[in-house]
Amino acid sequence: MRPSELRALSAQGQFDQPTAGYCNGYIQANMIALPEAYAADFERFCQENPKPCPLLEVIGPGATRSKHLAPGADITTTIPRYRIWISGECVAEVKEIGAYYREDLVFFLLGCSFSFEEALIQAGISLRHVTKQKNVAMYRTNLPLTPAGIFRGKMVVSMRPIHCSKVAKACLITGQYPEVHGEPVQVGYPEMIGIKDLSAPDYGDPVAVKEGELPVFWACGVTPQNVLLKAKPEFAITHAPGYMFVGDLKNEAYAQR
Amino acid sequence: MRPSELRALSAQGQFDQPTAGYCNGYIQANMIALPEAYAADFERFCQENPKPCPLLEVIGPGATRSKHLAPGADITTTIPRYRIWISGECVAEVKEIGAYYREDLVFFLLGCSFSFEEALIQAGISLRHVTKQKNVAMYRTNLPLTPAGIFRGKMVVSMRPIHCSKVAKACLITGQYPEVHGEPVQVGYPEMIGIKDLSAPDYGDPVAVKEGELPVFWACGVTPQNVLLKAKPEFAITHAPGYMFVGDLKNEAYAQR
Repeated sequence: MRPSELRALSAQGQFDQPTAGYCNGYIQANMIALPEAYAADFERFCQENPKPCPLLEVIGPGATRSKHLAPGADITTTIPRYRIWISGECVAEVKEIGAYYREDLVFFLLGCSFSFEEALIQAGISLRHVTKQKNVAMYRTNLPLTPAGIFRGKMVVSMRPIHCSKVAKACLITGQYPEVHGEPVQVGYPEMIGIKDLSAPDYGDPVAVKEGELPVFWACGVTPQNVLLKAKPEFAITHAPGYMFVGDLKNEAYAQR
Repeated sequence: MRPSELRALSAQGQFDQPTAGYCNGYIQANMIALPEAYAADFERFCQENPKPCPLLEVIGPGATRSKHLAPGADITTTIPRYRIWISGECVAEVKEIGAYYREDLVFFLLGCSFSFEEALIQAGISLRHVTKQKNVAMYRTNLPLTPAGIFRGKMVVSMRPIHCSKVAKACLITGQYPEVHGEPVQVGYPEMIGIKDLSAPDYGDPVAVKEGELPVFWACGVTPQNVLLKAKPEFAITHAPGYMFVGDLKNEAYAQR
């Protein structure tokens, strides 16, 4: 399926599943929309914390169509599923946001690790959550973020078990994608970043870390949703976890070689 | 001290100590000289095993002066200390090789990790063997090398303890120096590459690996000396470990960004 087809089906309410595994090779993005009053602070928050919040495109206020990631695509209809947030609480998960749309909304599209996972797999580094068809394991940490306005909190990380002979290669490959989280933030010591039990992730599904493997931690695009819980802006819209915006740009366009 | 001064003092027999810590910023190289009959095989061996044997320059036969690393420098006099090998046995360690020189010798200059250590330290990754003023810890491993002619054997690695929050950065930085061993070959599991006891290195000095750190292993330029022990060519000359050839090129010239 081409990205434009997936987006068209989403807009018609006919594509309603996680986007992982669809449109291979094309960039997928996290989305967060905030009233204009919060936008400057949130943009600065992203700039101060580029590893968990790598900003790819900003749309609006007063506009809803992408110019960069997927020129012409309407961000209010082409994501398969959205979450509506009131004062830091997720109050609804919906297939279209027409009833919630406000003229003052600013839409932020943030990089997603799906982009570098493809590069890892192509380099012969198999990812257990992909082969087992699970969602990647994600954890809240004690790694502080630089605050901006009401936006503050701790980083969420994703974890992938990597064989000890491939850790360096995995660092090099993901380091080539600074706009989609980049290289790992930590290797091998979950407890030092406040993760007590690897088998009990805060989001996603657990995977085994086998003998000869190390748990490797990357900054995760779920971080801003975790920040929303604390910042409690009066209103926000996000994509639903796993139901991403699919762009027309190729992942490889984000590789710096 | 400038590299040309260190080489001039070496040629006069007045510099007789390990070169680590001298001529900061300038490339240092491992040297191995073999009779022409072995040269093609050894060059192929280096090409097949570029991580432990990164070939920087080949000089001779019938010539002894560098054209690339230090134009004009005579390789037979400007290294502080040499080792003479007969049939795989080190028979002498000398300050000049006049008495052993043969017209058919081919000199190979190979990259050395001193080059990337400087970049690591500049990036805020402190190296315990440097702060403790010790030689880096080196170990024989079970990692096989691709054979060429009589040259075969296992890789020697150097180990540096790196904090778990800086492992990825250390991989990225050293990965920018493919001609001086590049990124690590393994992270965190010494026993899986045949290292039984980290506190008993085969060459160099042991350093502690502390809580929150991982032992990180890089391919090491001592590998060819280990290969000589097995290949037993009738004759060879090398630098003495730690007493390197110091070139006029800057380490940064070897960074690929």
